[in-house]
Amino acid sequence: MANEAISITADSDPIWKAICDETKITMNEEPILTSFLHSTILNHQSLESALSFHLAHKLDSPTASALLLRDVIQQALEGDPRIGKAMRCDLSAIMERDSACDSFSIPFLYFKGFHSLQAYRVAHWLWNQKREALALFIQNCISTQFGVDIHPAAKIGHGILIDHATGVVIGETTTIGNNVSILQSVTLGGTGKEHGDRHPKVGDGVLISAGAKILGNIKIGDGAKIGAGSVVLQDVPAHTTVAGVPAKIVGRPRTEQPALDMNHGINCDRDDCDRDDD
Amino acid sequence: MANEAISITADSDPIWKAICDETKITMNEEPILTSFLHSTILNHQSLESALSFHLAHKLDSPTASALLLRDVIQQALEGDPRIGKAMRCDLSAIMERDSACDSFSIPFLYFKGFHSLQAYRVAHWLWNQKREALALFIQNCISTQFGVDIHPAAKIGHGILIDHATGVVIGETTTIGNNVSILQSVTLGGTGKEHGDRHPKVGDGVLISAGAKILGNIKIGDGAKIGAGSVVLQDVPAHTTVAGVPAKIVGRPRTEQPALDMNHGINCDRDDCDRDDD
Amino acid sequence: MANEAISITADSDPIWKAICDETKITMNEEPILTSFLHSTILNHQSLESALSFHLAHKLDSPTASALLLRDVIQQALEGDPRIGKAMRCDLSAIMERDSACDSFSIPFLYFKGFHSLQAYRVAHWLWNQKREALALFIQNCISTQFGVDIHPAAKIGHGILIDHATGVVIGETTTIGNNVSILQSVTLGGTGKEHGDRHPKVGDGVLISAGAKILGNIKIGDGAKIGAGSVVLQDVPAHTTVAGVPAKIVGRPRTEQPALDMNHGINCDRDDCDRDDD
Amino acid sequence: MANEAISITADSDPIWKAICDETKITMNEEPILTSFLHSTILNHQSLESALSFHLAHKLDSPTASALLLRDVIQQALEGDPRIGKAMRCDLSAIMERDSACDSFSIPFLYFKGFHSLQAYRVAHWLWNQKREALALFIQNCISTQFGVDIHPAAKIGHGILIDHATGVVIGETTTIGNNVSILQSVTLGGTGKEHGDRHPKVGDGVLISAGAKILGNIKIGDGAKIGAGSVVLQDVPAHTTVAGVPAKIVGRPRTEQPALDMNHGINCDRDDCDRDDD
Amino acid sequence: MANEAISITADSDPIWKAICDETKITMNEEPILTSFLHSTILNHQSLESALSFHLAHKLDSPTASALLLRDVIQQALEGDPRIGKAMRCDLSAIMERDSACDSFSIPFLYFKGFHSLQAYRVAHWLWNQKREALALFIQNCISTQFGVDIHPAAKIGHGILIDHATGVVIGETTTIGNNVSILQSVTLGGTGKEHGDRHPKVGDGVLISAGAKILGNIKIGDGAKIGAGSVVLQDVPAHTTVAGVPAKIVGRPRTEQPALDMNHGINCDRDDCDRDDD
Amino acid sequence: MANEAISITADSDPIWKAICDETKITMNEEPILTSFLHSTILNHQSLESALSFHLAHKLDSPTASALLLRDVIQQALEGDPRIGKAMRCDLSAIMERDSACDSFSIPFLYFKGFHSLQAYRVAHWLWNQKREALALFIQNCISTQFGVDIHPAAKIGHGILIDHATGVVIGETTTIGNNVSILQSVTLGGTGKEHGDRHPKVGDGVLISAGAKILGNIKIGDGAKIGAGSVVLQDVPAHTTVAGVPAKIVGRPRTEQPALDMNHGINCDRDDCDRDDD
Repeated sequence: MANEAISITADSDPIWKAICDETKITMNEEPILTSFLHSTILNHQSLESALSFHLAHKLDSPTASALLLRDVIQQALEGDPRIGKAMRCDLSAIMERDSACDSFSIPFLYFKGFHSLQAYRVAHWLWNQKREALALFIQNCISTQFGVDIHPAAKIGHGILIDHATGVVIGETTTIGNNVSILQSVTLGGTGKEHGDRHPKVGDGVLISAGAKILGNIKIGDGAKIGAGSVVLQDVPAHTTVAGVPAKIVGRPRTEQPALDMNHGINCDRDDCDRDDD
Repeated sequence: MANEAISITADSDPIWKAICDETKITMNEEPILTSFLHSTILNHQSLESALSFHLAHKLDSPTASALLLRDVIQQALEGDPRIGKAMRCDLSAIMERDSACDSFSIPFLYFKGFHSLQAYRVAHWLWNQKREALALFIQNCISTQFGVDIHPAAKIGHGILIDHATGVVIGETTTIGNNVSILQSVTLGGTGKEHGDRHPKVGDGVLISAGAKILGNIKIGDGAKIGAGSVVLQDVPAHTTVAGVPAKIVGRPRTEQPALDMNHGINCDRDDCDRDDD
Repeated sequence: MANEAISITADSDPIWKAICDETKITMNEEPILTSFLHSTILNHQSLESALSFHLAHKLDSPTASALLLRDVIQQALEGDPRIGKAMRCDLSAIMERDSACDSFSIPFLYFKGFHSLQAYRVAHWLWNQKREALALFIQNCISTQFGVDIHPAAKIGHGILIDHATGVVIGETTTIGNNVSILQSVTLGGTGKEHGDRHPKVGDGVLISAGAKILGNIKIGDGAKIGAGSVVLQDVPAHTTVAGVPAKIVGRPRTEQPALDMNHGINCDRDDCDRDDD
Repeated sequence: MANEAISITADSDPIWKAICDETKITMNEEPILTSFLHSTILNHQSLESALSFHLAHKLDSPTASALLLRDVIQQALEGDPRIGKAMRCDLSAIMERDSACDSFSIPFLYFKGFHSLQAYRVAHWLWNQKREALALFIQNCISTQFGVDIHPAAKIGHGILIDHATGVVIGETTTIGNNVSILQSVTLGGTGKEHGDRHPKVGDGVLISAGAKILGNIKIGDGAKIGAGSVVLQDVPAHTTVAGVPAKIVGRPRTEQPALDMNHGINCDRDDCDRDDD
Repeated sequence: MANEAISITADSDPIWKAICDETKITMNEEPILTSFLHSTILNHQSLESALSFHLAHKLDSPTASALLLRDVIQQALEGDPRIGKAMRCDLSAIMERDSACDSFSIPFLYFKGFHSLQAYRVAHWLWNQKREALALFIQNCISTQFGVDIHPAAKIGHGILIDHATGVVIGETTTIGNNVSILQSVTLGGTGKEHGDRHPKVGDGVLISAGAKILGNIKIGDGAKIGAGSVVLQDVPAHTTVAGVPAKIVGRPRTEQPALDMNHGINCDRDDCDRDDD
Repeated sequence: MANEAISITADSDPIWKAICDETKITMNEEPILTSFLHSTILNHQSLESALSFHLAHKLDSPTASALLLRDVIQQALEGDPRIGKAMRCDLSAIMERDSACDSFSIPFLYFKGFHSLQAYRVAHWLWNQKREALALFIQNCISTQFGVDIHPAAKIGHGILIDHATGVVIGETTTIGNNVSILQSVTLGGTGKEHGDRHPKVGDGVLISAGAKILGNIKIGDGAKIGAGSVVLQDVPAHTTVAGVPAKIVGRPRTEQPALDMNHGINCDRDDCDRDDD
């Protein structure tokens, strides 16, 4: 079978096993979804196979048939096994951080931030293979279908949560570390019309709250927190909370990796905290 | 006929009658729309039947066939007649508050804020029936098709206007009163990764302007106004205008229910007003 | 042939010629896109023909067949040749200002800001023909497919860049001059529920950064710059930079037409500049 | 629920129960079909509901949406319960006579002769309601999708097997009794261009073998057998076998109702048989 | 407008006028068809425009988009006005000869013999333009969608009725005169594998009954009648009736052009008639 | 890449090489087909990959998505390499015998007899894997899309031409040898309702002309010819021509394998020939 080469058996892949187990329970509870759940999950041998099937359906459009898209997604997943690993980290990240989510199957099936990110990973692989045209084509599919615009040349780590996702923009020379959480309507944008390195460099564990705009080739240090609605035009030191338009330092996140807490509080008088509840 | 049970005759349903009358006029003016208008409106016996048909087409996707979706929407509309009542209040609200709209049929046919809200009402009914899986499925359909993300567990009153709608996010434990107006890119979000009650409680008559982010289990009092682009992290007293990042009290709305005025002005030096024109 | 009347030969239309030439190169580099590129570009005699084909596919939905949409788009392009001219200016604008873009074919094929704008131009033509119903229908297609909401009555010049585009809202009585750049999540909105002239008037060469909300019938002077995330409720003088919530004057753009630079910097202590790098 | 009124519980409907039971076994044996089988059969409360869903999908085309077709099919099934009864007789007939078929679910799901016949029953009901235009529309759907052309005014009994079905034509004033078997490429046609009664009258239990053409207002007596490839232009007495071009009497069927045996033999020297094996 | 050049106003085109008038009546009687009838007929300026729209929808498939097909059909109709004239003759022929049909709109909308024939006319035009590949592509669309296989190189006159149509095959070097009627399952085929002229030459006014096979480069004289189910391997003189396997002369048609009578009788003892009723 | 395992390079596969070469020429001659030809042929590494893509699109329907179908077709092609070999023989057979066809790509792309046969080969493989349910599902897809009904249990050799194909029926216990030609509307059917071996056994090199019906467990000897429209109810000796209703011996084919000549003549007085031209 076509997918054998990349098949990871359920036994050796606990996330895939969990998704299958959760799905079987859901199918019993909600027979109406049986059709969808079976063809999308239980019909597959591996998480990679399920992902290529599901994403191909999600990105399908009159100008990009599901058959063509699935071939491309499979090529990427087989061409670089790190995509599958990063996807599993992303699923764990969502499970851990999103209070409204207590399963692996829900984000896999429904979260368009997750779908956008995995489709970006495919486009990024194409970009690195010097297949820029096809990478831009996929970028457009993501933008049209999900309202998320990630340039395929951007470099993004693993364990990423893009929550709610509508309106997120991530520019060409952006780099994002691991274990970062990004909320809806966030922009990691360039400034000026010069080519070259012009987008933010985001460290590990950073939390970027809803609607924040980070513009230009500036550095957001590890463990920083960017308040909702902030406009950041200058470097942000590690383990610092910034907020406002334009953003100013207002405190320190309570934890090393605020992305993991998802605490969006920024009201703080003291230097060492951003607790909004005391 | 399948829809008879829920049929409300045009005579006893003035909004449905108005939609039909408006549609007949439009069909004369723009024959190109005849096809669409007839199958979506005039072919139906009741507003409920038209809604289930129209929403099913709007939410249709390769993973959710229109036939399946229509069955579910009909079940909800028949299962809880309050959905139909709330829908009529929502239509009246749009008609009354949106200056660019002077008919019932336009929002019914075209406003994706209205479509998102009614689809949420269906998902909410499913959630209360303990059919969480299907409710989350519908939530994803709404998010993908309209760019609006409303958790099915949220509690939302009637007479709601979600204007332009793209990017709106409403979290799991949010409650929203009656006669509230919400503009595009508004977030009613949680903070922290703990489960439990963690989203805003919005009173009656509140106006939430474009791009405002309201985060955490805080209370927005009746008749409050939240300025555009504000980030609200603390309770807002009733009949108070707040603005800024983070939001501070800047005045009082000129009317009891600013949602009805749709006046987004916040520039005010005096305590008792937010008039931007005097 | 149907398109002959409006055919502009490649020789006399350098942008169309460039798009065709770029496409031939891309087809060699990425055979997978051959199908898409040929039917969308090389199969056509003119930029207008290609646009009507591509937009019709992009806007296609169960309620609006591609066949019907293409007829309407062709009517508009043939009815008012200024649409084709404005489209060419828009393509040149993107090419010139968007650092991530160095071809005409990429925005033509993939940028949903460009697609939204051209579809608006079609809807605007219908509106002026007193075909309001069909214009509103197209507005809804744009909003649903691209997450961009432009009222067909708005008046928009040429040489416009709508970058990334998700969440952009442009209201009914808005006017926008030439050579304006608008980023994602920008609102040009009304205030109050009165009918009549209630939206912004934006001059030439203005740059409106990501997430800015400009509300009410206020004047944004030529060459002004609106900082990211700003909320603008009052007139902005020409050649002035404003920022903040609510927006205040913070400096002067470094050039006459900041839209052309795409420099989003607003941190400036001196009156005469907004350089963020010195 | 919409389908309740016509719901026949599985307990009181042995054919529906059998279809459901067979389907559950098949789903275990062939998981790939789970999606299809669940949405088409197990998701429904009654055979009528499953039929309307399945036929609507089968007849779906760009000019007739599944949503519209399902409404019409439901109206017919609810408007005349005899359609459901006849359908059950047809299923039993196939099960009993078709050697390649030993279940109810296979013909329900896959036999286009069965699908054509049930769609005809819907069109016939419409015709009797004086909705000729819609009846002709459905006739065209059947002809295009299945290659079977049955005029909606024809009168057809129950317990009918249309085997393989491609190319079958049944004209406007045809009547067909009960328990008749009709093979592929059979024509029951008119002759002459006069309006009025001009098609065959076929009795009970008749077997019409592959490719036979029966033309004109002639009577085919009960229990007659029409040999494959015959051209019948004159009355055929009851319990008689005819064959040839033009057809002549060649013997007698071995049983009272040759339709039930499906024995197509016609080589017979003796008056009392058409045994081809002795 | 694109179709202006070929526009024939309703006033000067009585068939188009009749179709529009009939359609308006039907729309009143059967509102469910309003959508379909309007977009297919009333939305158009001419019969040619309506035909290109309707055929494009009918032939639409995953490998041939309606948009592409419509362009090709329009090119043919504009490239050779004789196609439109022949189409009108075909409609008149059906109206006159088919007892089950008393309008122009019914065959235009629903008869797949008519649709196949017009699509062949488009393919034939392409073939004569030396665009064989596209002509064969269209031939395949016709064969797949309608079950009718007409080689684009065949030459076919006007006033042609292909009744019921399923299974009709017309080979490459066939010629068919004017005013011919062809029933379902008829083959006009070649014999031998040599290239060159190897198919039948059918004169004017010929009636070819259901299932007849005419094989080889033989001549079927003007006004001949070919009995149902016949296999014709030799020339048939003008005004002669043949029948049987292989076909033999059995009489003379009662009229000069049996195609116009549609009388399929062949039982005749006398040389000068084929009356089956005396 | 998924298809690598079964990849046969163009160099080692002359038929695949010819198809690719022919396609490149066609693309130059008819740019409108570029899209279709590229995605269907040139985008693939092997004939098998192209076949699975093309067949999946051809069989696509609301109840069987192209994605699912392609997976199944690929499994079959990889599971039994004899399918690919038989397909190549079939292509050679068509090329050699069909006078209207002088390329490999035309039948591959367009001949529904070829498509039906390859889809049957997939279904037959499934049947032998004891996946009867899925095999019957595919049988139904073939019947609905192509008007060809081949039971998946039938056994069919290689080098088979099914010409024009509409209406062909091949029953469950049929066996067909190699190098057989079958024309449109041919039935290889059973007789009687008993289970067990009840369909024809057709030898090598047999020619079965249009509309012939062969019924029952009878033997058609090697090199036999069955005249058009014949009804065969008894064994046919090898190298014998039969014709008529019922069929009688009328001569001998001029060659050993009449299937290769495609000479349909049956008029012969002499024992040793069936020349219709001397």
